[in-house]
Amino acid sequence: MQNPYGPNPSDYLSNVSNFQLIESTLREGEQFANAFFSTEKKIEIAKALDDFGVDYIELTSPVASEQSRKDCEAICKLGLKAKILTHIRCHMDDARVAVETGVDGVDVVIGTSQFLRQFSHGKDMNYITNSAVEVIEFVKSKGIEIRFSSEDSFRSDLVDLLNIYRTVDKIGVNRVGIADTVGCANPRQVYELVRTLKSVVHCDIETHFHNDTGCAIANAYTALEAGARLIDVSVLGIGERNGITPLGGLMARMIAADRDYVLSKYKLHKLRDLENLVAEAVQVNIPFNNPITGFCAFTHKAGIHAKAILANPSTYEILKPSDFGLTRYIHFANRLTGWNAIKSRVDQLNLDLTDDQVKDVTSKIKKLGDVRPLNIDDVDSIIKDYHAVVSTPLVKPNNGEAIDEEMSLLNSVKRKRLE
Amino acid sequence: MQNPYGPNPSDYLSNVSNFQLIESTLREGEQFANAFFSTEKKIEIAKALDDFGVDYIELTSPVASEQSRKDCEAICKLGLKAKILTHIRCHMDDARVAVETGVDGVDVVIGTSQFLRQFSHGKDMNYITNSAVEVIEFVKSKGIEIRFSSEDSFRSDLVDLLNIYRTVDKIGVNRVGIADTVGCANPRQVYELVRTLKSVVHCDIETHFHNDTGCAIANAYTALEAGARLIDVSVLGIGERNGITPLGGLMARMIAADRDYVLSKYKLHKLRDLENLVAEAVQVNIPFNNPITGFCAFTHKAGIHAKAILANPSTYEILKPSDFGLTRYIHFANRLTGWNAIKSRVDQLNLDLTDDQVKDVTSKIKKLGDVRPLNIDDVDSIIKDYHAVVSTPLVKPNNGEAIDEEMSLLNSVKRKRLE
Repeated sequence: MQNPYGPNPSDYLSNVSNFQLIESTLREGEQFANAFFSTEKKIEIAKALDDFGVDYIELTSPVASEQSRKDCEAICKLGLKAKILTHIRCHMDDARVAVETGVDGVDVVIGTSQFLRQFSHGKDMNYITNSAVEVIEFVKSKGIEIRFSSEDSFRSDLVDLLNIYRTVDKIGVNRVGIADTVGCANPRQVYELVRTLKSVVHCDIETHFHNDTGCAIANAYTALEAGARLIDVSVLGIGERNGITPLGGLMARMIAADRDYVLSKYKLHKLRDLENLVAEAVQVNIPFNNPITGFCAFTHKAGIHAKAILANPSTYEILKPSDFGLTRYIHFANRLTGWNAIKSRVDQLNLDLTDDQVKDVTSKIKKLGDVRPLNIDDVDSIIKDYHAVVSTPLVKPNNGEAIDEEMSLLNSVKRKRLE
Repeated sequence: MQNPYGPNPSDYLSNVSNFQLIESTLREGEQFANAFFSTEKKIEIAKALDDFGVDYIELTSPVASEQSRKDCEAICKLGLKAKILTHIRCHMDDARVAVETGVDGVDVVIGTSQFLRQFSHGKDMNYITNSAVEVIEFVKSKGIEIRFSSEDSFRSDLVDLLNIYRTVDKIGVNRVGIADTVGCANPRQVYELVRTLKSVVHCDIETHFHNDTGCAIANAYTALEAGARLIDVSVLGIGERNGITPLGGLMARMIAADRDYVLSKYKLHKLRDLENLVAEAVQVNIPFNNPITGFCAFTHKAGIHAKAILANPSTYEILKPSDFGLTRYIHFANRLTGWNAIKSRVDQLNLDLTDDQVKDVTSKIKKLGDVRPLNIDDVDSIIKDYHAVVSTPLVKPNNGEAIDEEMSLLNSVKRKRLE
């Protein structure tokens, strides 16, 4: 059966099966409220990202502070497989410092929206174009990669954007970038803009999506469908405000679309450690609902879900937990449980009950689940006591630790057997 | 200026400005691993949802357990403005119980994908259609609303789906539902399926998106663009595995598209309390990166961001924090800070420094920010001491609490003034 979540065959420019990651935990992520990375921590994170398999690692501008420059130089000297980038304003002052750090490439950005032109740098499009050309030619002359990105691209004038992108493409940038700086583009807008841009430039297209309105992963995916090649991500999405496209969430999205490609490039079983490393460094908890590594991402609870999952995990799982070094969990200790889930637990406990007996004990478990939250021990104890009663009627069940409700449940079992 | 994030004028079937919410914290949310809601907690949550302004409140099936049925009846008696729904399997046994609870409507669901037909209920499409017709006609005969939804719609055969939807539409369901049960549809797939379905049925279309690959908000938005009218949400997105479209995240998305509509219907300033209520009930933390209510959703850090935000918040904010009863925060105590952010702090402290002096003290703050994480007191102390030195050179600054680095910074200020 064809994967219904695979690349859309009508997207002939799609890079869903040919994307690259620009990992920006050490740049965008440093703009996260809680982030303060020591040199040692930056190096530890850079090595972990490299080991995971990201294509590029983006670092804070060397002109942000003296230590930022030194850290950039130190990371360039590590000899990582990933290419090292730094991210600067579109100024010759910044570019001169950046090219001396040893980076493989420079990411240049300038605001092109009315908002940014008026309230940030105050320059017009002519000035922006001239600065861009000067900086790009300078960086190229040093033999390193150069990306030119607009900022707040989705609130910029389309003609302004296409003009400047065509200009920089002609002078030979490696990539042009589209940035949803305020985090509010929606997927079909993204598709339109990327497709249009793709018809104007020959170089690769990189995209950067903030997550203020919760669309950063979907926008990244849709950008790839339209022909973008590179996605900016950070671990757990950390960045300005509530951040950008998260590495883990994008991996979930991409593995559903092209498992072979993702598994061939990225060490997914290291994702959890990578997220824990960064979460600890910036003192946050992994969100309970995080894709893949959230504590319940592979937990199935409702009776009808559990039944089908036990028969075939693909019924309710598009992701395989084992791809990430994780395991599935059938949550059977609750009032929504069903007899298939309890039967599976009975089998795990190596007990022998008929289907009718399992249904009977399930109804008792659900009854107790109506009274209070259950844990696994509660359920196991009910099952074991039930099993003891039905299999050895002459021996009294061990009720030493049984609570009142369980006692009465067990008594009803006994009565039933005697009827 | 036209809102670039508003409804797309070419989507003539769009319900972006005319959507409704089916709030499922008390149904889908009860399938969340940690959820155990007492009767009192369910009533508290139902009242809070009603006060927030949701259109429908969906409850767990009354056949899930005895207490589930009683709770459903109790909530129906509260006399809320929101319509009360319960969610059942496509069985007459379930339907007979559901219609007696006092609900305003019944949501019926059945698996239509190969996976579910094979591994869950084991029925063919004829059987499904016949059951659906029987249940729908029965519920309609009781004079209450009825929705028919397929489950795992995106892995179901398109012709099967359209056939059954057309059949149930003809016999007069109020809504048909599309469900991305495994959480892996992508926005353009959603658009295509909803648009196609919209051309086949006359009733409203409801959509339900799981978030396994992080697209639940974007998929919901795109479904509205294509002509769906109702979106299933839960508070914080709680549900099976890592959950569904979150209420708060969808509000962020929708207010960016049509602020007037959203403000006219929903009490957004109650969102934080509502999320805290549910988070406490299921014992989770609000994710650090939650849209709107994440602790840093309105925190701006990098120097160039802070500068522009101070000049005009719309530069880097698509959402207004005051719409949600929240406030903006400029994070100036870090090495990425810029002189505009520090100048704003100097003004807040009611001190008088020239721009050159602010730039000078900013570079000292950045230097200390390279050495260790800063807090506001650190920065305020540097600014105040600097101000003391430059404004009253004959009075020794109060260095009682100053650390070594600050001392040497201050001495350098003094030396500079004496040069």
